[in-house]
Order: sequence, then structure tokens, then C-alpha cells
Amino acid sequence: MPNRRTVFIVSDRTGITAEMLAHSLLTQFEGPEFKRVTLPFIDTPEKVLQVNEQVRAAAKKDAERPIVFSTLVDDDLRGALKVDCALCLDFFEAFISPLEQELNHKSSHTMGKTHSVNNFGEYNARIEAINFALAHDDGIKPKDLDAADVILVGVSRSGKTPTCLYMALQYGIKAANYPLIPEDLGEVKLPAVLAPYRHKLFGLTIGPDRLAAIRNQRKPNSKYASLDNCRFETAEVEAIFRKEGIPYLDTTAKSIEELSSTILHRASLQRRIF
Amino acid sequence: MPNRRTVFIVSDRTGITAEMLAHSLLTQFEGPEFKRVTLPFIDTPEKVLQVNEQVRAAAKKDAERPIVFSTLVDDDLRGALKVDCALCLDFFEAFISPLEQELNHKSSHTMGKTHSVNNFGEYNARIEAINFALAHDDGIKPKDLDAADVILVGVSRSGKTPTCLYMALQYGIKAANYPLIPEDLGEVKLPAVLAPYRHKLFGLTIGPDRLAAIRNQRKPNSKYASLDNCRFETAEVEAIFRKEGIPYLDTTAKSIEELSSTILHRASLQRRIF
Repeated sequence: MPNRRTVFIVSDRTGITAEMLAHSLLTQFEGPEFKRVTLPFIDTPEKVLQVNEQVRAAAKKDAERPIVFSTLVDDDLRGALKVDCALCLDFFEAFISPLEQELNHKSSHTMGKTHSVNNFGEYNARIEAINFALAHDDGIKPKDLDAADVILVGVSRSGKTPTCLYMALQYGIKAANYPLIPEDLGEVKLPAVLAPYRHKLFGLTIGPDRLAAIRNQRKPNSKYASLDNCRFETAEVEAIFRKEGIPYLDTTAKSIEELSSTILHRASLQRRIF
Repeated sequence: MPNRRTVFIVSDRTGITAEMLAHSLLTQFEGPEFKRVTLPFIDTPEKVLQVNEQVRAAAKKDAERPIVFSTLVDDDLRGALKVDCALCLDFFEAFISPLEQELNHKSSHTMGKTHSVNNFGEYNARIEAINFALAHDDGIKPKDLDAADVILVGVSRSGKTPTCLYMALQYGIKAANYPLIPEDLGEVKLPAVLAPYRHKLFGLTIGPDRLAAIRNQRKPNSKYASLDNCRFETAEVEAIFRKEGIPYLDTTAKSIEELSSTILHRASLQRRIF
């Protein structure tokens, strides 16, 4: 693998921002192969020296020089991380200085701000939203949906649960979900229990081939997983969505992040955490 | 509020990367107040022109000029977004060009790569991990833990469930959790059901004051929520963790992200998604 490069992702805290930075950039390059190594909690000069050793070792071993993505807020640590044998790109280095100039304000250079519990109010909102999603998953407590910000409806395995959980974790949104089961279909109308919450509904649908594949992993060769049944169920829910004017998305080729942010945007939901 | 600035977060897709970028940077500045406006799915020249109008309107209204953080992969869209009346910082602009030079490879400039379903294998691993966390939440199916990558143990409301869900979503890790309830405590030993999985255990503890505050929100003035009981339970679980040599974390002032990445790191877990 002559083209394989080692990519180091170095952070003074969790590494989550640095990983997203690296991921967004590397997915723009389709040719080369990358071996990713995340090194979180690099918060002392000694740890930086150890990272430098690892980077140098990779540079010796690989045919190509390593790439180092870092998010280090401390100027000295950032300076110490520079290694000639690698391309080093630091996120704070690129942006902190223009921001300091613009704001006419020194940055705090405090590690661990991004994902710290800065605000217990936001933390509680997040936990509450997670508990809400768990308590209202798959039609549980359907009569207790007054507190929901949004209610996702769709057939079984169309992506409702992961999307609700992601919206809770990322945005603090209280998202319930309600499965439209075969007993609900055939008459092209909403289950009565959802009627009072029509304005909160957001539909999910999915390509029948993909749905059959997902269901076959769970219950192989069942009627539930058969392509015919998946075609019937998805056609029915889409007919309901159109007839009732419920906004909906096709989840087939969308990630949980794409679904969540699209719903947030299209349903004009107010996020509780930032 | 003379110092309040409008911060626009502009993305051609979900806005999740751009939000994290902006958040990491802005949390480094403690003085100024920011009003954040996320504008996702800005993927045509027409939409960029609309954004420019919004930015100009904010510049007129606010005492200070706006800041625009963007993640636009298309060079033309990025060029069109520049507005003189704002500080514009684009993430791809800063990093794509040094990477192209280093890799000797043009970037694909394809929108929506970061959070797209590039890989159905990874997508399935993620969904499986989420289902696993849900099926093994709070001691459900304790005899079926062979497939767990890690099992979080701790008292009720110490942060186990959100951490398991985050590890599933972010890393594809199969994380179960098992609550240590008062009946399990007092003898400073692990429940028998956990004994076969001792090497997979990771403990969570929490400051008794914080625990009492969280529990009081759920069951006000109960024995469960009393400070005395919270002191007893946390002291007991910490004694078990120490006696049994179970690694553990104090969740009191840690975010879900910090807990998850620390456990991933300290337990040397292999993530299934990147």
C-alpha cells in the first residue's frame, strides 16, 4: 500500500472536534488511503513529545509523510507539536488570530471548552430530551405526547429511533416516534391517537429494497421482511403523508445527521443546546 | 447589548461541522455575546445571495459587524459568500489547499461528504450499536452481555444511559449499562450477574450533591433523592470499583462527549465508525 498515509488527530481534550475536522477534509480526497490515529488528552509538553515520537516513527515507516490535524488551544503545546517530517494543520492556529483581531479580545486559551459542561441548564435539557426519546420510542405512551417538539412517524425500521436519539443528544429536541404498523395501513388515514398532534408530525419513508434488506437482517425470510410487503407498507405511508400534508423525508441514502438537521430546519424547531 | 454580534454558520449541508467549528472557537472568547444563526443546505448561488442579504441586514442592525463561519466545498459558492461588512472564515478555504499540495491530488469538492452514508457497513454498525444500547439499558437482559464491548456500571442517574447512546452513535461501540441499586450495595461486592464480564466493566460515579439535585428533579423529597442516601450509594460504588480494580470516572463536571471519549481511550475500545 504505497499510498497509505498515517493521519494523526491530536487534541488537548476529547478529540471529537479534531476528528470531525479531519474527517470533513479527508473525505474530500478519494484516491489516497489513510490510517487514522486519534490521540486525545494531549495536554502537557511531555505528551506532545511522545506524539512527536509517534509521528516520526510513522514518517520512517510509511512511504509518504504523515498528516497531523490538531486542535490545541495552548500556543506552547501547538508550537511544540510541529514536526518537520509531517504536514501539521492546527485548527486554532488558523482561526483564533483573525477572531482575536476582529473581537479586539484575547482568547482564553482554556482547554476543553468545546465539550465541557459550561452550562448545567443545557446539560439538563439534553438529559431530559434523551429521557423523553427513550420514554416515547416506538409508540410507547402515545397519549402523553403534549411535551413532544416533534413526532416522527414511519414504518418499522425506517430510521425513527436513531434520528430521535440524535436530535435529543445534538439539539436537546424532544422527539417522540410512532411506528405505522400494517394494522394502521390500508385505509390511507392516520391512527386516531395521532390526530391531536398532526401539526407535530414529520414522516420518514425508505426505499423498499433497502427496507427489505434491513428487515431481513432481523427476521430473515419473514413476511415482515419480504419485498412485496415492504413495497406495500412504504407506498401506504407515503400516501398517508401526501393526503394529510405531513412533511416527509426519504431516509434511504441519508445519514442520521442529515435527517436530524433537515427535520430541525424544515420543521422550524427551536434547539435547546448549542 | 452593544457588544452582541450576530454569528452566521453557513453550510452546504447539515451545518453540524460548521456549528462545531464555530462553537469551539467562540467558547474561547468569554467577553462578547453572540447571537448564532445556522443556515444549512446553502448549495446554490441563489441561496448564497439570500445569505448575503441576511448578513448585510445584521451588519446594519448590530453595532458590530457579523462573523460568518462557513463550510462550503464549492469554490464559486465560497467566493460568492464573501461580504465586506463581515469577517468571513471558511474552513475548507483554510485547509483544502495545503492538503491538495501535500497529497498532490485535487479534492473532489463534493458537498455532503462529511455526514453522508458513505459506507453501508458503517451505517449498519451504527444502527446495531444503537439497538444494542437500547436493548441493554439499565440492566435489561443482563445475561446476554457477551456481545458488549463495554458495560457501564454505576448508581441510578450517574450518566450511564446517555453515555452508552453517545458511544453507539459516535463510535459504533456496543455499550450496555447496569445500575447498581441499593440492594446490590452494602457488601462491597459486584452483583453475581456481572462477574463473568468483569474485564468489560467501566464504572461511573458522581458527586453526591449533584446526584441528589438530579434525583430531586425526578422524585422530590424521596429517600432515593436524599443527600444521605446519595452519599451512601456513591461511597459504596466507589468502594466496589476500588476493591475490584474497575476503572472509573467521576461524571459530575464532565460532558457526555468527554465521558465517551475518555472511556473509549482508557478501555482501549475499537471504534466501528469514523
